[in-house]
Amino acid sequence: MLGLMQDWPLTCTRILDHAARNHGRTEIVSRTVEGPIHRTDYASLRQRALQLAKRLDSYGITHGDRVATLAWNTVRHMEVWYGLLGLGAIYHTVNPRLFPDQIAWIVNHAEDRLLFVDLTFLPIVEKIWPQLRTIERVVVLTDAAHMPETSLPKVAVYEDWLAEADADFAWKDIGENAAAGMCYTSGTTGDPKGVVYSHRSNVLHAMTAAVPDMLGLRSRDRVMPVVPLFHANGWSLAFSAPLAGAALVLPGPRMDGESIWGLLDAERVTLTAAVPTVWLMLLQYLKKTGKALPWLERVVIGGSACPRAMTKAFEEDYDVRVMHAWGMTEMSPLGTVCSIKADYAGLAGERLLDIQEKQGFAPFGVEMKITDDVGRELPWDGRTFGRLKVRGPAIASGYFRNDDRSAFDDDGFFDTGDVAHIDPAGYMQITDRSKDVIKSGGEWISSIELENVAVGHPDVAEAAVIGVAHPRWDERPLLIVVPKEGARPTRDSLLAFMDGKVAKWWLPDDVVVVDEIPHTATGKIRKTALREAFSGYRLPTAE
Amino acid sequence: MLGLMQDWPLTCTRILDHAARNHGRTEIVSRTVEGPIHRTDYASLRQRALQLAKRLDSYGITHGDRVATLAWNTVRHMEVWYGLLGLGAIYHTVNPRLFPDQIAWIVNHAEDRLLFVDLTFLPIVEKIWPQLRTIERVVVLTDAAHMPETSLPKVAVYEDWLAEADADFAWKDIGENAAAGMCYTSGTTGDPKGVVYSHRSNVLHAMTAAVPDMLGLRSRDRVMPVVPLFHANGWSLAFSAPLAGAALVLPGPRMDGESIWGLLDAERVTLTAAVPTVWLMLLQYLKKTGKALPWLERVVIGGSACPRAMTKAFEEDYDVRVMHAWGMTEMSPLGTVCSIKADYAGLAGERLLDIQEKQGFAPFGVEMKITDDVGRELPWDGRTFGRLKVRGPAIASGYFRNDDRSAFDDDGFFDTGDVAHIDPAGYMQITDRSKDVIKSGGEWISSIELENVAVGHPDVAEAAVIGVAHPRWDERPLLIVVPKEGARPTRDSLLAFMDGKVAKWWLPDDVVVVDEIPHTATGKIRKTALREAFSGYRLPTAE
Ligand SMILES: Nc1ncnc2c1ncn2[C@@H]1O[C@H](COP(=O)(O)O)[C@@H](O)[C@H]1O
Repeated sequence: MLGLMQDWPLTCTRILDHAARNHGRTEIVSRTVEGPIHRTDYASLRQRALQLAKRLDSYGITHGDRVATLAWNTVRHMEVWYGLLGLGAIYHTVNPRLFPDQIAWIVNHAEDRLLFVDLTFLPIVEKIWPQLRTIERVVVLTDAAHMPETSLPKVAVYEDWLAEADADFAWKDIGENAAAGMCYTSGTTGDPKGVVYSHRSNVLHAMTAAVPDMLGLRSRDRVMPVVPLFHANGWSLAFSAPLAGAALVLPGPRMDGESIWGLLDAERVTLTAAVPTVWLMLLQYLKKTGKALPWLERVVIGGSACPRAMTKAFEEDYDVRVMHAWGMTEMSPLGTVCSIKADYAGLAGERLLDIQEKQGFAPFGVEMKITDDVGRELPWDGRTFGRLKVRGPAIASGYFRNDDRSAFDDDGFFDTGDVAHIDPAGYMQITDRSKDVIKSGGEWISSIELENVAVGHPDVAEAAVIGVAHPRWDERPLLIVVPKEGARPTRDSLLAFMDGKVAKWWLPDDVVVVDEIPHTATGKIRKTALREAFSGYRLPTAE
Repeated sequence: MLGLMQDWPLTCTRILDHAARNHGRTEIVSRTVEGPIHRTDYASLRQRALQLAKRLDSYGITHGDRVATLAWNTVRHMEVWYGLLGLGAIYHTVNPRLFPDQIAWIVNHAEDRLLFVDLTFLPIVEKIWPQLRTIERVVVLTDAAHMPETSLPKVAVYEDWLAEADADFAWKDIGENAAAGMCYTSGTTGDPKGVVYSHRSNVLHAMTAAVPDMLGLRSRDRVMPVVPLFHANGWSLAFSAPLAGAALVLPGPRMDGESIWGLLDAERVTLTAAVPTVWLMLLQYLKKTGKALPWLERVVIGGSACPRAMTKAFEEDYDVRVMHAWGMTEMSPLGTVCSIKADYAGLAGERLLDIQEKQGFAPFGVEMKITDDVGRELPWDGRTFGRLKVRGPAIASGYFRNDDRSAFDDDGFFDTGDVAHIDPAGYMQITDRSKDVIKSGGEWISSIELENVAVGHPDVAEAAVIGVAHPRWDERPLLIVVPKEGARPTRDSLLAFMDGKVAKWWLPDDVVVVDEIPHTATGKIRKTALREAFSGYRLPTAE
């Protein structure tokens, strides 16, 4: 027997419809790539998204088509998302910080038909254009007055192109399980993998994100996602803020301390979110200038572990509540937030900071377990650590055009590649990582790719790359090499050799030459042993 | 192209699984029907619900079966819900305040197989037993020590019956669109109508209920639903509290001011919910005794309009924030909550009370519109009123075994029977009712049924019943009669005639004899004209 409830598919455009109808005049403020601040509201965003959908429709974009964006957090970027969503097409956010070859690989793998690009990233697109096999046209997110010369053959100016349509359009009917968005992660070994969000997963994730023990979004909030939209859905905020009717403040291309503070202050932002590296820059700016944060109530910090000193500084010096969050691209991305339960409600000072170092507990919709290497569940005692695995409606069941199921167990749990313990109150804390990647300033660096490049050097017999703690970037790569017999590779010759073969910011911060690298029985490099051996290593780049 | 996200059906037992795993030791405190306070937690509730599911399964209850409850808010009632849900069977909450014949009618219409009943209501069941056509067995929610003599032929004592199974059971796999619960509403004309909730609608509704601008439930909250579980899912709290991991305090059979205050205080309740009549009793008790509400932070008031003086008293005298809420059985039931948006954030005093008299704005998942009588949409200007219609995933699409589609328009919107205006900020305010029913102390009284009984009186030519404002019950029925020629029906003879034909609390508070009742062109009684004519009428029962 079925329920007798209305059939109301969970499609993303319903979120925008809701915001436009119930919070139509609520502001969306963007710092534009061109410079000035731009102000609009949800009712207008919806009109522009309808217009874009009509324009895309007349161009021939349809259900299931992928369209790439290389863009900052601005309202134009959001228009593109919702315009595509309203056709059943798929927004594919590409991370502009990747090495150009990787960007080309990803766009080709996704078979994106169009590419919407901010002025900032036009040079990248020009550079990789010959490699792009499926892009039919590049749309530059600007107006005619700001459009530069370009070598691209098939290009349109966003505002002109958009103006060719009016907003008299209705969202297409698509099921809630249709693909909605796509984001490649390099947080795994091997080629980047495409996570494909559905309308349903995005909507459920936004609902989950909004609840009080997660982000706790109210219509009264003014929310600034500093975390880029190209990082796993901007931690849900392009959906959860309109769902809650909260105002949005979008920082565009400027993420330095002064620019961030400027918006927080001028726009009276109440909640903001980004990786620790961004907040380090802000705190340094505040300290230097003596500025305060009178409007900001809450700061969401995740992507890497939030350092204890950062929590302390925000809470004690600026009276801003820190919400330590953990998640990943495959989780849409929010997994846990460290809200304070009744169990810990009485704590203060260092005892409270002990709790806030934890990544938090799971909301309804995220199931967690920790297991040993053969999949047996481990107890939640706050000490025993194991592989952290998750299940839920907004968690990936696989990757785009990729048959690798190795990350999923028989019960459908996804292995996050994080190693954690969970305490009896349900608070999870990450203690290590089983995946062989390094996270620097919120972005992934592939150890294996660096190793492959390094062993190409004529003097190198074997190479290993590990992440070493760094005060600003959380982790930075350290290259460890065993020289070929008789050879004496130097730090400088190695770095010079690697330069140009990977992104500049991937280059190791230091090189250590050793006689031997430890191996497992099956001949793999024992990264755990290396990480342990170099756990106290002080990088020359660490101030 | 479909998303690549996990298939994770929104079934109600996942909420309990979540609470048991992540908030396992969070308390559920019940005042028992037998008297004492009983304490348990989510982990134990889950075990007992599994045990009950196993017991029901071995009895032969299966997917799609309906099972009735006539019960107060206690943890046993919740066990029954979740036990049934875990089998794919349907909890059917029956309102014990209905006239016994109505109860029998409803249980027969639903074809309930079992009936779980609190000691309080056993006499009702004994009385209607001969009428019940489908109930195979009555399970009395008590233990052997408290089991009274009963005339019922097929009866079991809950605790003994439950003990026949252990908890080694797994929830059955059912789709999210399966029926989950059932609740008959008499808030419409004609026979009571069965609303059938699905697992999906209950889960989505609980997620919606939890967000900050709705009930804003945190794991730190201690939530007391005074609103009965048999009133439209207890306003979601049996689902939304475990979803948020909040503690539950269940008041059992006692809802007088002293008992409610006792629990609010002893159990440090932070959020509670009920109809205005309950809060009137509490406020009177507080005034009389000089007691305070040091723990309570928020009170949800709905089911009838929350009087301005009540909001003022809670907020100014007791520092408790009032959340005026509107909804209906067909809406699972929450529709709107009057949270304060940025638009009104600066208001205080009488200006703020003006806003708080409104029923509030719609969350994501509730679409509202107001229309004229031919279905044309009306503007949201805060003045123009019209029929309030709603659409959403937790709103009924029809009634159980009932083909009447008259409440639904072509776009699938459900006509609430309320008349309202909506202001530019999205705040809805109910101004009148198009349905011919009266709401007294949170319960419906059918005008038409009273009229049908009254015209049976030998002296009555025509009868009309309208609701008239009452300080305690919000509305009470006033009977207006036109005598047969030459007859002189008196108040007393009329009320004596009606007594026993309807529930005692349905009897009109007063009777007015008139020469003529106004009619529409098609010969129907013009209730609007009558309500206007008697809008200032002072009932003798109004202190
Ligand atoms: N709060 C956090 N603490 C520690 N590591 C984190 C945190 N948030 C995210 N991560 C790491 O970042 C990964 C997800 O990266 P991504 O998919 O790029 O968002 C996780 O699996 C963790 O390894």
